[in-house]
Amino acid sequence: MSKEKVVLAYSGGLDTSVEIAWLKNQGYDVIACCIDVGEEKDLVEVQKKAKQVGAVGSIVIDAQQEFAEEFCLTALQAHAYYEGEYPLISALSRPLIAQKLVEVAKEYGAIAIAHGCTGKGNDQVRFETAIHALAPTIKIEDPIRDQHMSREMEIEYAKENNIPIPIKKESPYSIDENLWGRANECGILEDPWAAAPADAYERTLPLEEAPDQPDYLEITFEKGIPVALEGEQYPLHELIKKVNQLAGKHGIGRIDHVENRLIGIKSREIYEAPGAEVLLTAHKDLEDLTTTKDLAHFKPLIEQEIANTIYNGLWFTPLFKSLQAFLKESQKEVNGIVRVKLFKGNAICEGRKSANSLYDLNLATYTDADSFDQEAAAGFIKLYSLPSVVHSQVAQKNAAKKVDNLES
Amino acid sequence: MSKEKVVLAYSGGLDTSVEIAWLKNQGYDVIACCIDVGEEKDLVEVQKKAKQVGAVGSIVIDAQQEFAEEFCLTALQAHAYYEGEYPLISALSRPLIAQKLVEVAKEYGAIAIAHGCTGKGNDQVRFETAIHALAPTIKIEDPIRDQHMSREMEIEYAKENNIPIPIKKESPYSIDENLWGRANECGILEDPWAAAPADAYERTLPLEEAPDQPDYLEITFEKGIPVALEGEQYPLHELIKKVNQLAGKHGIGRIDHVENRLIGIKSREIYEAPGAEVLLTAHKDLEDLTTTKDLAHFKPLIEQEIANTIYNGLWFTPLFKSLQAFLKESQKEVNGIVRVKLFKGNAICEGRKSANSLYDLNLATYTDADSFDQEAAAGFIKLYSLPSVVHSQVAQKNAAKKVDNLES
Amino acid sequence: MSKEKVVLAYSGGLDTSVEIAWLKNQGYDVIACCIDVGEEKDLVEVQKKAKQVGAVGSIVIDAQQEFAEEFCLTALQAHAYYEGEYPLISALSRPLIAQKLVEVAKEYGAIAIAHGCTGKGNDQVRFETAIHALAPTIKIEDPIRDQHMSREMEIEYAKENNIPIPIKKESPYSIDENLWGRANECGILEDPWAAAPADAYERTLPLEEAPDQPDYLEITFEKGIPVALEGEQYPLHELIKKVNQLAGKHGIGRIDHVENRLIGIKSREIYEAPGAEVLLTAHKDLEDLTTTKDLAHFKPLIEQEIANTIYNGLWFTPLFKSLQAFLKESQKEVNGIVRVKLFKGNAICEGRKSANSLYDLNLATYTDADSFDQEAAAGFIKLYSLPSVVHSQVAQKNAAKKVDNLES
Amino acid sequence: MSKEKVVLAYSGGLDTSVEIAWLKNQGYDVIACCIDVGEEKDLVEVQKKAKQVGAVGSIVIDAQQEFAEEFCLTALQAHAYYEGEYPLISALSRPLIAQKLVEVAKEYGAIAIAHGCTGKGNDQVRFETAIHALAPTIKIEDPIRDQHMSREMEIEYAKENNIPIPIKKESPYSIDENLWGRANECGILEDPWAAAPADAYERTLPLEEAPDQPDYLEITFEKGIPVALEGEQYPLHELIKKVNQLAGKHGIGRIDHVENRLIGIKSREIYEAPGAEVLLTAHKDLEDLTTTKDLAHFKPLIEQEIANTIYNGLWFTPLFKSLQAFLKESQKEVNGIVRVKLFKGNAICEGRKSANSLYDLNLATYTDADSFDQEAAAGFIKLYSLPSVVHSQVAQKNAAKKVDNLES
Repeated sequence: MSKEKVVLAYSGGLDTSVEIAWLKNQGYDVIACCIDVGEEKDLVEVQKKAKQVGAVGSIVIDAQQEFAEEFCLTALQAHAYYEGEYPLISALSRPLIAQKLVEVAKEYGAIAIAHGCTGKGNDQVRFETAIHALAPTIKIEDPIRDQHMSREMEIEYAKENNIPIPIKKESPYSIDENLWGRANECGILEDPWAAAPADAYERTLPLEEAPDQPDYLEITFEKGIPVALEGEQYPLHELIKKVNQLAGKHGIGRIDHVENRLIGIKSREIYEAPGAEVLLTAHKDLEDLTTTKDLAHFKPLIEQEIANTIYNGLWFTPLFKSLQAFLKESQKEVNGIVRVKLFKGNAICEGRKSANSLYDLNLATYTDADSFDQEAAAGFIKLYSLPSVVHSQVAQKNAAKKVDNLES
Repeated sequence: MSKEKVVLAYSGGLDTSVEIAWLKNQGYDVIACCIDVGEEKDLVEVQKKAKQVGAVGSIVIDAQQEFAEEFCLTALQAHAYYEGEYPLISALSRPLIAQKLVEVAKEYGAIAIAHGCTGKGNDQVRFETAIHALAPTIKIEDPIRDQHMSREMEIEYAKENNIPIPIKKESPYSIDENLWGRANECGILEDPWAAAPADAYERTLPLEEAPDQPDYLEITFEKGIPVALEGEQYPLHELIKKVNQLAGKHGIGRIDHVENRLIGIKSREIYEAPGAEVLLTAHKDLEDLTTTKDLAHFKPLIEQEIANTIYNGLWFTPLFKSLQAFLKESQKEVNGIVRVKLFKGNAICEGRKSANSLYDLNLATYTDADSFDQEAAAGFIKLYSLPSVVHSQVAQKNAAKKVDNLES
Repeated sequence: MSKEKVVLAYSGGLDTSVEIAWLKNQGYDVIACCIDVGEEKDLVEVQKKAKQVGAVGSIVIDAQQEFAEEFCLTALQAHAYYEGEYPLISALSRPLIAQKLVEVAKEYGAIAIAHGCTGKGNDQVRFETAIHALAPTIKIEDPIRDQHMSREMEIEYAKENNIPIPIKKESPYSIDENLWGRANECGILEDPWAAAPADAYERTLPLEEAPDQPDYLEITFEKGIPVALEGEQYPLHELIKKVNQLAGKHGIGRIDHVENRLIGIKSREIYEAPGAEVLLTAHKDLEDLTTTKDLAHFKPLIEQEIANTIYNGLWFTPLFKSLQAFLKESQKEVNGIVRVKLFKGNAICEGRKSANSLYDLNLATYTDADSFDQEAAAGFIKLYSLPSVVHSQVAQKNAAKKVDNLES
Repeated sequence: MSKEKVVLAYSGGLDTSVEIAWLKNQGYDVIACCIDVGEEKDLVEVQKKAKQVGAVGSIVIDAQQEFAEEFCLTALQAHAYYEGEYPLISALSRPLIAQKLVEVAKEYGAIAIAHGCTGKGNDQVRFETAIHALAPTIKIEDPIRDQHMSREMEIEYAKENNIPIPIKKESPYSIDENLWGRANECGILEDPWAAAPADAYERTLPLEEAPDQPDYLEITFEKGIPVALEGEQYPLHELIKKVNQLAGKHGIGRIDHVENRLIGIKSREIYEAPGAEVLLTAHKDLEDLTTTKDLAHFKPLIEQEIANTIYNGLWFTPLFKSLQAFLKESQKEVNGIVRVKLFKGNAICEGRKSANSLYDLNLATYTDADSFDQEAAAGFIKLYSLPSVVHSQVAQKNAAKKVDNLES
């Protein structure tokens, strides 16, 4: 009789290798699945290893283009910074990974999906909520959390099950990375008064080592999508990689953030998002030029909700679809070019131009300082300040009455 | 018979000197009034000049401490950036200046207040709305706008009225500055594609000239108020000046912003706010450590409204008082020290500590990775994702029905 | 030589009849244009009268269906009440009327559009902003406001130009009405302490005269659109009329509102919106059943912005398009039937059902009070209250320290 | 050796009587505590019964005045309706009850607090979060949830422990009530398509039995607090009771709501809040008259957050304190009298007056339709519509370019 199948989100590390053994010991056929969202790891090796440690199937999916065009783009256009600081690196990849796992599970008739998140983080919530939303009846396995596996127990379990244990000293950090950036927690970083050590960073040079000459980059946007660098067109995932490299060289995009996790605690995180930082800055700058004031002033409410919704793992919800509909409509006139200076950790928008610029010297209405405008201003101020005048008159009348009452 | 009096907001420049003459020619006794909010000008000279060109009285008021403790502090605690970028420099001083003008007008029995704003800017609206709110029946004179005085007309009028005309070539820029920063518009800046030239800046060194060694600054906050630098206490206006100098040396706080003016047009502005940038960054960082998640997530709505309300000249309104009440209450636990690295245009919060830290390794609830927590997480996720599960089940049931209907 | 043409928004009343004469005297050929949005007036008479008083052309456009399907529907789905009370009657028709005027102007090559709004109301702003948005260079004429025409001047001008003056005593009220409701201001209503007199209302019976037997109405919605009454399908504009009649008979939908006008003053308005009230109540009730919590909790921000944007005459803006995109997406699952009891001024939703109901007794997850759920609740509460626990522990530790310091 | 003490929130019903026995059997000395927030029960009987079934102490606390002045008043001034419909009846009393339990626990040196909430409701979360916030280390006991006690088990347990079992047939409903209203769930109400039966209501007459003559009620507010009815002053809790009676007689305040519970499910609830409905309507009406537009337009964001925060059991949090600070400041000018007509389920504000009225016929600025105003309007519209004009011109220019490109 054939066994039930489980699809496991596999990374190649000790945690998920042990999970293969554990799931197998529970009676499952394990299909390991590694989704490439731009970690820049050797995924051929990862794919091989899954088989070696007992998976019946091992799949690698290149999801970089989809990740860029659907997920990173939403974050970019929404200026999505969680708590004003974190550009949603891991949070952004979780729904896509969950979606791929569900697709594989359906294709192979698996009855369960497994992941290796701990019980103190956000990702367990994001994975499970996304999987539930796409496949409400599928079983979810998380032995690391549910079996309370400590590091020591994992090593023991690995030995018993012939899983190779990494020889070299483990990094003190817990890393997650993708096209949009790199996240780092644990170790010395747990003391928020301590500065992050040099080796906490990988994608960005320290400012002290950044070049003494700036680079200038012209980024072309069409409908809010970055489509070209220096006039040359790239698919979005390639474009992001190029900007990552250039901006990383200039030490741009380091973030040190004490943040509120979804599950009720504060944590201290180190992020690197060089490309994201440059693209987010440039996109906002172009919106400043092309977006009407009322839209520009309302959009931040949508942006904050998008950032929270992504952070909270609620990508596949009717709310998020509605927010995205707003966002997409808001981008129709975000066309043009921004010139960014990259230098010593700074991404400086020095110039911007657009056929949709609402700042236009040639529009007579605001380039001539003519008498008519100035009369309009007087009328405008009269009505604009009318509520203040009325309020003030009533307040003074009431104050005067009180004085009369006291005196009489 | 004595003449009616007018109080004029006097800067010492050509505009307001011509206004003294014009107001005098209308039959007023002019009381010139210069309010010091940290421009770092020679105000003794300004005071003298007003008399020379015809004012019957000339007053200088040092409002720096009040400006810092009431106005800059509100902007700091509210993380008040207009459109996410402009830290409200000029907008911040206008209500205080209006308040002082009204106080002087009441003291001297003046029937009017005069200012020298043009008809295309925000400041005319801010001044007049603030004056109306404080003195709803006082007359407001703005000859520059209402007489449509061009530069040439002003020079002509100055000659006729024995007002000295500045000999040296005028700056191409229109500058306004105070403790919180420096604003610059006009000239070459009107082309948003052109980079701002070097001479547009004055308070900050260019990054290329910034020192190759960082400075580190420990800033102490009590109830959200910065009270000490490197452990040494300063009155707030002195503290801001100190940070301005240090941060300016490192090229921190340059802003290049295409913004939506209150009166319906977009303009391009260059700002420098070195001290503000450092203090704003540090204050947010300390809030990240000390503020509960729900407050931290709601406060940005208050912050955006405060920024807009200040920008729009509505300081003296019941709405603003209510917003300030929220803000003040929110600061009670924002105590602690932030260590900032100042380097090459960057203000980097490297460490933060507080007796009110909600990130606390000693709290057993989140330093032990115990089984209990992890079970709690599973329960949490179950209820947290329940709406997604139910929604998904209903959607799938409906999709199945549709297929049935099509097939039958 | 042919004359320049102007298109006039014509109502048949004295104001706009006088305008025909005035515009003619300015040298225009006047094309009168009456847009039917459901006022239930004799528009054949209005069309004839325009010619009689001097228009070269007179056009009546039946825009009821478009008004219902585009404008009323947006207001319905957005639960659009200005200031929580006014369901946007006049504000809703203005953009459609402006759009039709612009279309006629383009068709006939007119260089100007004229309307007859006073200088104290909202409608002048709404008309002109909408016309500017659709035809930024067309000239706008508003002689009533710009010539400061008083009632007496209008009568004088009418006599001189052979315009018939209404014989019967004028109503003391200023009325505007359409499919969505009826607005009434002026006269005795200007005293906000005085109750509105009986003759201020026309579409609704007084509660005292409403029937002693309720009516019950089952309203079917598809994607948030009311499509059937008692199971019988109607085009939306017919459906609204039917509900207006039935609800009006039961005295439903009277509104007495002191509101903040766009131009800075408060006014007191009497509205009747019987059909709107019933449909808005039923639509919200169905959303309660079919919409996920997170969407239901965020949508009010969108709703308030939609209401303000419509009230403020900003229908034809990029912001409004983005808000509508959100709204449309949010309606996809608002399918089902609501049973409303209409009785003595009350529209009471007594029952609701839907294939998209997220309240479903058959979903095991929340119909069984099983042990699993209850354990989940304990875990949920543990993490949910964790921030409160941590905050409280820190606060108590600090309080204890203060006591120690005082005692030592 | 003395036993550890537990304080139990005691209602006199079977659930909490069984809990006394269970807690006793765990080795606790039980102190029963009944907090009167206006249920109108015989609390002397309840107090006696606790002793009879085994409590070592039994306390009744009259908290009605505190409940009115602190909790109901906040809800009133915040127009706090959860999801726009539910005026927060039970949610409002939970923090006060928790506070009293904690006070009693501290007074008697108890180590635990017990309540009798089920695992599917909101109240378990509200109680425990509030208790945690006030006493983070105290133990919480909830045997009903944690021992999975079904009705049958409770009866068995009662028999074994000599607890009298209610003889008369139990109500099919689960009721909670206080000064602010009455909440009802379960039974037939679980079918959202079924109308609530007559016996689901107790505080309000059915419309069919409501009197055929209206009552008129003048309610006086000072700083947003209702202080007098018909000119006669009452303490707030007495005033609420009076309005409850009068409004209940007219069938006002019935609510039938499908709502989203805190713990992830939808439930259908029947509420009665006659007094709350009248006071909330009147308070909003007075704010319309006395509050400036900008405050009136921003306050709903605060209101929605307050409603959610109370519903979610987060009264004792820094966020809530900040929201209350805003709210309190916003009420300073909400003074005046509202005349409400109570009739057939309707609370109709027919008139309102105030010394702080911002609608004032005597203010020349908007009672004279003078030429000046109307010119101001033209200027206002010019600047107000300027962004639309510019946007439209740019859009048309771009559209024309596209046509040129296609044609060339």
